[in-house]
Amino acid sequence: VSDRPNSTAASGAERSPRKVRADAARNIHALLEAAKVSFAASAVDVSMREIAARAGVGVGTLYRHFPKRSDLIVAVFRREVDACADAGKSLAARHEPLEALTRWLLRFTDFVATKRGLATALHSGDPSYDALPGYFTGRLGPTLHTLLDNAAVAGEIRTDVEAEELLIAVSRLCAPGPGDNELDQSHRMVKLLVDGLRFRAGDAH
Amino acid sequence: VSDRPNSTAASGAERSPRKVRADAARNIHALLEAAKVSFAASAVDVSMREIAARAGVGVGTLYRHFPKRSDLIVAVFRREVDACADAGKSLAARHEPLEALTRWLLRFTDFVATKRGLATALHSGDPSYDALPGYFTGRLGPTLHTLLDNAAVAGEIRTDVEAEELLIAVSRLCAPGPGDNELDQSHRMVKLLVDGLRFRAGDAH
Repeated sequence: VSDRPNSTAASGAERSPRKVRADAARNIHALLEAAKVSFAASAVDVSMREIAARAGVGVGTLYRHFPKRSDLIVAVFRREVDACADAGKSLAARHEPLEALTRWLLRFTDFVATKRGLATALHSGDPSYDALPGYFTGRLGPTLHTLLDNAAVAGEIRTDVEAEELLIAVSRLCAPGPGDNELDQSHRMVKLLVDGLRFRAGDAH
Repeated sequence: VSDRPNSTAASGAERSPRKVRADAARNIHALLEAAKVSFAASAVDVSMREIAARAGVGVGTLYRHFPKRSDLIVAVFRREVDACADAGKSLAARHEPLEALTRWLLRFTDFVATKRGLATALHSGDPSYDALPGYFTGRLGPTLHTLLDNAAVAGEIRTDVEAEELLIAVSRLCAPGPGDNELDQSHRMVKLLVDGLRFRAGDAH
């Protein structure tokens, strides 16, 4: 955190700039967590008042940080994409290449499954969301690419599958359906795709 | 075709019942073909007039056979499902089990890809379509089950994947996306699933 003063801090009467920034950061964090939970539990049309209440802040604070609902949705989405990309790095550090790849694809499956409400917003045509698909692909494509590369170098999977194509395929496998055990189903099918990657891994040349 | 007279035939003045029935069958066939092409080319909200014109019949004939748009959609969908189920039988008769399974899954992919417009109608909540998902699963589930069984008996794939689950997974892989070469992509991913089925086929016990 830099010490550069900002306008919010300057307008704070008795509180120090550092204190104001810390409060703002804490509020933003609480709001994004609350919004994430609310979007997952209900839909993106959950009321702003409900999100503020869950975060333990006033609605005014919510609107000061996120003037429009779309601002909040964009921030939640980007934060979740970042967390998923970061998970790729930490899984790669902690596991063998094939295990890291498999675990990350299942982690990604969970991410997609809980982002269905957001997906509806994303495809609504609202230009506020125009940059998000690019952000998604730009962050997660290279993450998967690295995990695939590692497993291919280790001779555990074939080399003829594109990261972006696989990313799209797994997203689609997590599309909403009528079943009760959807996430289990998605996981089984993602594992089947991984087994497809492993099939004749040694034959690639 | 039975010789039982029907009310349409009885009302035909100079034409024989057989002739009337033959005309009706020809019109119905032309209408279903025209509707299928129209639905694939544009969307299910293509005008009834356009479908009649493509079939070379009057709009009155269209409405006599299919009073509501949903009647036409249901008939097209069922006919395509039947054709896909029949393809399973003929592929099984002409090819080795693994080849028959792979070809049928790609055939099914094409079916799903061209039925996107219909899928929108299916999920519209209109009760006219309530029976279709059951028809789809009831016809195509056993078709895939048989193809999987044949390949498993031949030792070419594992035995731990459920036909219905795989059917749903492949349908989802064919969900609409932004890419240009969507069908190629879907085919590659379906082949990857088949390779997943082949992985450690011998280990099943």
